[in-house]
Amino acid sequence: MATLSAVALNCTLKASPAKSSCELLLTHVLSNLADHDVEGEILRVVDFDVHAGVSSDEGDGDQWPQLRRRILDADILVLGTPIWMGHPSSVCQRVLERCDAFLAETDDLGRMVSYDRVAGVAVVGNEDGAHHVFAELAQALSDVGFTIPAEGSTYWVGEAMQPIDFNDKHPTPEKTAQSAATLARNLAHLAHALRAAGYPAGT
Amino acid sequence: MATLSAVALNCTLKASPAKSSCELLLTHVLSNLADHDVEGEILRVVDFDVHAGVSSDEGDGDQWPQLRRRILDADILVLGTPIWMGHPSSVCQRVLERCDAFLAETDDLGRMVSYDRVAGVAVVGNEDGAHHVFAELAQALSDVGFTIPAEGSTYWVGEAMQPIDFNDKHPTPEKTAQSAATLARNLAHLAHALRAAGYPAGT
Amino acid sequence: MATLSAVALNCTLKASPAKSSCELLLTHVLSNLADHDVEGEILRVVDFDVHAGVSSDEGDGDQWPQLRRRILDADILVLGTPIWMGHPSSVCQRVLERCDAFLAETDDLGRMVSYDRVAGVAVVGNEDGAHHVFAELAQALSDVGFTIPAEGSTYWVGEAMQPIDFNDKHPTPEKTAQSAATLARNLAHLAHALRAAGYPAGT
Amino acid sequence: MATLSAVALNCTLKASPAKSSCELLLTHVLSNLADHDVEGEILRVVDFDVHAGVSSDEGDGDQWPQLRRRILDADILVLGTPIWMGHPSSVCQRVLERCDAFLAETDDLGRMVSYDRVAGVAVVGNEDGAHHVFAELAQALSDVGFTIPAEGSTYWVGEAMQPIDFNDKHPTPEKTAQSAATLARNLAHLAHALRAAGYPAGT
Repeated sequence: MATLSAVALNCTLKASPAKSSCELLLTHVLSNLADHDVEGEILRVVDFDVHAGVSSDEGDGDQWPQLRRRILDADILVLGTPIWMGHPSSVCQRVLERCDAFLAETDDLGRMVSYDRVAGVAVVGNEDGAHHVFAELAQALSDVGFTIPAEGSTYWVGEAMQPIDFNDKHPTPEKTAQSAATLARNLAHLAHALRAAGYPAGT
Repeated sequence: MATLSAVALNCTLKASPAKSSCELLLTHVLSNLADHDVEGEILRVVDFDVHAGVSSDEGDGDQWPQLRRRILDADILVLGTPIWMGHPSSVCQRVLERCDAFLAETDDLGRMVSYDRVAGVAVVGNEDGAHHVFAELAQALSDVGFTIPAEGSTYWVGEAMQPIDFNDKHPTPEKTAQSAATLARNLAHLAHALRAAGYPAGT
Repeated sequence: MATLSAVALNCTLKASPAKSSCELLLTHVLSNLADHDVEGEILRVVDFDVHAGVSSDEGDGDQWPQLRRRILDADILVLGTPIWMGHPSSVCQRVLERCDAFLAETDDLGRMVSYDRVAGVAVVGNEDGAHHVFAELAQALSDVGFTIPAEGSTYWVGEAMQPIDFNDKHPTPEKTAQSAATLARNLAHLAHALRAAGYPAGT
Repeated sequence: MATLSAVALNCTLKASPAKSSCELLLTHVLSNLADHDVEGEILRVVDFDVHAGVSSDEGDGDQWPQLRRRILDADILVLGTPIWMGHPSSVCQRVLERCDAFLAETDDLGRMVSYDRVAGVAVVGNEDGAHHVFAELAQALSDVGFTIPAEGSTYWVGEAMQPIDFNDKHPTPEKTAQSAATLARNLAHLAHALRAAGYPAGT
């Protein structure tokens, strides 16, 4: 099978080089993807100047076009976000807002420009919120043309109202490691399937 | 101050007398409410035959009217639910569907029949989902006329993908005990305030 | 290509033969699926006695096992629900709770028993709530092993706080008809792809 | 009764002086609040440089401290947001992230610094999402110390997948005008009640 490519977006609120639990979880996903012949990289969204808006280019100084290009060049998107107030981060929501532009953009086959790409979700928080964050992202990503695999998320959160970081959990919690491996396996499989036979031309 | 009354609805999927973690958490809330001169009781919704529908009486055999009476007779509603698939239980959603009828029912002052009542939320799960469940319930309860206090929920969930029950946690997790106490204090205060001065007549 | 099969679950609160807007929307989806060589049928969940619980068989009188069999016999699941209080119906949440049992059930390849099946969502309401309902369902369905296609939902809702039913809209709103067609096309394509090459064996 | 004050935050993605439907809806709420002797103003969040983070001051150039001051100086917060992808805007989520700092800040009575303040929600979109946005905001605002009145939101959205703006609806949709009036009346009443008798000292 052909080699596939992935891009992982880390939607932490903290600019590089600050430590990020989300980065660590995305590293697990990418390392598992490598076992399935998928090459990938992590981009920290907050290191780019992504303007507020819902078009693909918000003009002078907007660095979304660079991120957009990487997303569309890859077969797989892994959207990683911390949980804040039980929700996806504002940085993650901004990514979704910019992807909203895909709804009006078509490829050579008349399909939404993002078609035939697969998306998975990685969520970390001190506590509570991962399922809801996955819900918000699965809906939005499907709405803008991505396909979501079986068991399309991996996550870690601690016990209710506890302050521990995923970064400080050693060794890696087994269940999270397992779900990162399952996510990677399913992303790779589905991306291969859509590479082999893409969605039909739009009408 | 006048004595107030509370009704706590346990939306577990398990009929009595099966053990219920949600029951335990509601017991904490009621016991804290008692410290604020509020008398209350827990009703397990699944022990009643609550028919599917969105009216206040779905006819023959429907036992919602009994629950509805208890809700409207109380100053405080505590809605307790387990988390299933990251969501409020189907039993809890059914309660909300039946409360939908309040939207078309007015009291002597021309206000929605549920006005001047305060609602809080108690959520338990093995893992993850409490904030989202509170979000679903806070919105729905406010929509149908209840007032939501500051820090209007208490909850317990374990670490990601772990199977432990709140029932089996000894002693009670401190943070959850604390938030149950805060919730009770705020519910009681707000219910007293609305008893002293209710919302103005509707128009 | 081989003929595929679909099952559509209508999670209306109203038992047959009451009119259901959700039924109408599901009819659109199935009719579009037929154009892609997919045979399907609609089952109204509330016509079955689905017990509260999270196992695959809740014992005496529980009719979930019949629905479960139909779901697992089909390549495609279309989960249809009305919006109540902005949420999926209690009947729909019950379906999800019963699908929770899939998490612990494996097929001959050691994968979750629901793998290689594709799911889409159809939502109707008088007003507001379709995106959130799709979010809740996309997350839950992916969690329990289903794959979600690009543009994995179709819906109709009216203007804010208006009482019109989808059943009473003539002709069918064009955008909804279009999205039902897109959903059907994508479900069929993805189901064919997973039939041709299923997810790898679990570990 | 004493005069109360309100601050309305407009979380549109568009900087002033661009037209904003959310601004228009907030104008309705403030105008209704004026009828209840509440003075208020609208601040457009995106006109301020609100840094990413979860503290009350993210340092050099961060203008959140100005917004935070206005929120805490007011009795009533009206949080207004457009719907993007079915969610609160990224600008709105950023406001919530910055309010997260309230959780660790106490007033003279040892209570969360935001206590005794009332919050309402105003949501606009071309279509679908208002209930969910209210859910996200009601939960987050209650979590960080605000009290939510009965019928704590007003909103307008159009029919499914339609492109009309609230700004272009003339005359104002009656149901939305009505719910803005109800929201204002309830916010004012509840703010008066908490001014007369605030939550008890924390422990």
